[in-house]
Amino acid sequence: MEFDTITAISTPMGEGAIAIVRLSGDEAFAIADRIFKGPQGKQLIGAASHTIHYGHLVQPKTGDTVEEVMISIMRGPKTFTREDVVEINCHGGIVSVNRVLQLVLSQGARLAEPGEFTKRAFLNGRIDLSQAEAVMDLIRAKTDKAMNMALGQMEGRLSQLIRKLRQEILETLAQVEVNIDYPEYDDVEEMTHRMFLEKANLVKIELEKLLRTSQQGKILRDGLSTVIIGRPNVGKSSLLNSLVHENKAIVTDIPGTTRDVIEEYVNVRGVPLRLLDTAGIRETEDIVERIGVERSRAVLKDADLILLVLNHADDLTKEDEKLFEAVDGMDVIVIVNKTDLPKKINLNRVKELTGEHRLVTTSLLEDQGVDELEEAIASLFFAGTLETGDLTYVSNSRHIALLGQALKSVEDAIEAIESGTPVDLVQIDFTKAWELLGEIIGDSVHEGLINQLFSQFCLGK
Amino acid sequence: MEFDTITAISTPMGEGAIAIVRLSGDEAFAIADRIFKGPQGKQLIGAASHTIHYGHLVQPKTGDTVEEVMISIMRGPKTFTREDVVEINCHGGIVSVNRVLQLVLSQGARLAEPGEFTKRAFLNGRIDLSQAEAVMDLIRAKTDKAMNMALGQMEGRLSQLIRKLRQEILETLAQVEVNIDYPEYDDVEEMTHRMFLEKANLVKIELEKLLRTSQQGKILRDGLSTVIIGRPNVGKSSLLNSLVHENKAIVTDIPGTTRDVIEEYVNVRGVPLRLLDTAGIRETEDIVERIGVERSRAVLKDADLILLVLNHADDLTKEDEKLFEAVDGMDVIVIVNKTDLPKKINLNRVKELTGEHRLVTTSLLEDQGVDELEEAIASLFFAGTLETGDLTYVSNSRHIALLGQALKSVEDAIEAIESGTPVDLVQIDFTKAWELLGEIIGDSVHEGLINQLFSQFCLGK
Repeated sequence: MEFDTITAISTPMGEGAIAIVRLSGDEAFAIADRIFKGPQGKQLIGAASHTIHYGHLVQPKTGDTVEEVMISIMRGPKTFTREDVVEINCHGGIVSVNRVLQLVLSQGARLAEPGEFTKRAFLNGRIDLSQAEAVMDLIRAKTDKAMNMALGQMEGRLSQLIRKLRQEILETLAQVEVNIDYPEYDDVEEMTHRMFLEKANLVKIELEKLLRTSQQGKILRDGLSTVIIGRPNVGKSSLLNSLVHENKAIVTDIPGTTRDVIEEYVNVRGVPLRLLDTAGIRETEDIVERIGVERSRAVLKDADLILLVLNHADDLTKEDEKLFEAVDGMDVIVIVNKTDLPKKINLNRVKELTGEHRLVTTSLLEDQGVDELEEAIASLFFAGTLETGDLTYVSNSRHIALLGQALKSVEDAIEAIESGTPVDLVQIDFTKAWELLGEIIGDSVHEGLINQLFSQFCLGK
Repeated sequence: MEFDTITAISTPMGEGAIAIVRLSGDEAFAIADRIFKGPQGKQLIGAASHTIHYGHLVQPKTGDTVEEVMISIMRGPKTFTREDVVEINCHGGIVSVNRVLQLVLSQGARLAEPGEFTKRAFLNGRIDLSQAEAVMDLIRAKTDKAMNMALGQMEGRLSQLIRKLRQEILETLAQVEVNIDYPEYDDVEEMTHRMFLEKANLVKIELEKLLRTSQQGKILRDGLSTVIIGRPNVGKSSLLNSLVHENKAIVTDIPGTTRDVIEEYVNVRGVPLRLLDTAGIRETEDIVERIGVERSRAVLKDADLILLVLNHADDLTKEDEKLFEAVDGMDVIVIVNKTDLPKKINLNRVKELTGEHRLVTTSLLEDQGVDELEEAIASLFFAGTLETGDLTYVSNSRHIALLGQALKSVEDAIEAIESGTPVDLVQIDFTKAWELLGEIIGDSVHEGLINQLFSQFCLGK
């Protein structure tokens, strides 16, 4: 395929030592040569692939120096996009990198859309769609485990499984065709049914196995939306600080994006917690009082995990009981804090209200019980299953949905076979499963979906 | 000189397509080889300089894949630090780049201090101190003009001037020594005095010329601290938005640094305005009411420029008059806003209060008068002098202070000569000027100062 030459800033915005402006496309070398002045008038276009060149960028019209740079040139197809790629390493200042970008744009490159470099890698056949999606997952990974998962997917582990399953389905479909066209025996219908059933069950088991990883995969990828609730002064702020300080907080505040919502991630034994409304807690130490129990319910709706904090040194109040009501049916860990102070709370009543949920007592002031709390969080979502190593996790909602639909089609096929439906109807279900799995790796997706998927990427990737 | 091998993340923190972990030192290649797995088991240590290599980083102990990377290798002395340099390009995620850094550290590299790469470039003699300082100025530049200034300094324009002046002084001192040791004539004392005076005046003129650029240089480098003041509802917020929207705002919010103070820069005709307390204005539309006139005075103290806004459609109040008092003696532009509404203000009284300052009338609502305001801001600080092109600007406070002290020593020398002081005393002043100028380029500075200077750099540079 042939595309125009695109460019974008490929490093995060901000002040740093180095920033990179990347170009990809047929004109990449020619554009670079128009603005590059090497020490001995060296031309980039003749240089060997995968080499680095020191020099200056200049305004072609005026000859004015724009920046001091190192330019990396890489010839397609051995590049990320399979096209000619130029990476301009300049100083990591805001003015500097924008100036280089403007210069490159002025020479005829087009500003890349978000994800357009990766999209080209996909469209040019270097990676499939699930691998392309893994690139963004890798960049956004909040924990080591999430990154490993993305790395595995990027290297095609999920793709291989999917391809294998599709191959099984395709071979079965082909065999059925053969059976129908060249019946060797009289009991073709029965044999075909039997083979179908056998293969369908095999595929079903594999799909179920993959889907079993999906809940954990999604948590590893997106983090557990976690809300800390409790009355004023029970220690919500201390809990927040304790979680943040014990486990290095990962703040993902990106310049240029909104400053209103600050997400904070903490990594609790490999489980990424995405702490919601931490600003609210930090500012007022009082989410319940500030926004009222009614409003709290709205915040709670988006939560995967609730940490409900009670005061060991105070009576249980109506407000506490209301909080228990508000989190009914959710994943809750109840924390009785301030065990350093004399007990006043009715622990029996707390246990009654807690029911099946986990109950942990802490003295955050004296750093007591935090280990137990972290253990409770980890075991709630990954009871003993996370250490199994080489499992291929499915983490992307789109993949999970498609796997679910494919499973449904296979189940429909099994049901049809068992109720004696004619083979050609069973074929339809089986073919549908094959198509749905194809969408995961991008073998059968329409352009609109592709555009939409890549638009969620960050700029410059 | 020989140093250990250092490493740091050299791109800004945040999510982006690419991040770079840089290594510099004797062990850079060996460390990279221990963790790099190329496609055909290729070793980096044998590879040609300035080449790029695709592969994976692996944990040497377990063989686990850590990241997919592109590694650039550059052999000293043709590198930024003059040492062997390795740049690991990995995915620009927070986990990804930290993981790569940790891996490199685990193999014996030491985490670089802020500015340590540039410090090595200085200590290894690739650049002098003023050039090293320009690197950071370039990264922090807020406007094109500031960047050009830094670029010029980085390429040694200031250094050349300083070296020339020092050479003049040194030659004069040498000549004086010769005259003293080998007096050919009887009037050696008089001749020496005359020569000293001539040279001293020459150096004095050059130093004064440089210092004349310093006020503008400093403004270009650091921005003009600008405060918008006025009573509630006069249009401060509109003015702020107008300045920000008309001139692309440069927000310098760096992840990991404090979030309390958000500086916003706008580029008004090449003059970078650093808008102070914009958060205050945005939140309350009312700096005066909120913090009181007394507190305003404190904010005003740090300001280089005051924009005092009055309401065209309202009477002049006592508060307005107090504001005029508060800004007495400062650089003020008075803005009478809301000319779209019927006039109620006493313009004659406003003119009286404004005195020598510039007065501009605007209707920010109807976008009237903004050009005139920008013109007023630009001409206040750069009346016709900025377009002179090739002038070498001095912008760094340290340099300005040293130039000032050197000038003082030269003036002392001149005074001493004129009052007939013995030559050896004049020599002392002249030698001092030579030393002071040497400190600018780092020829005679002590280690403590060097460490302190580089500690202000950003990490990874």
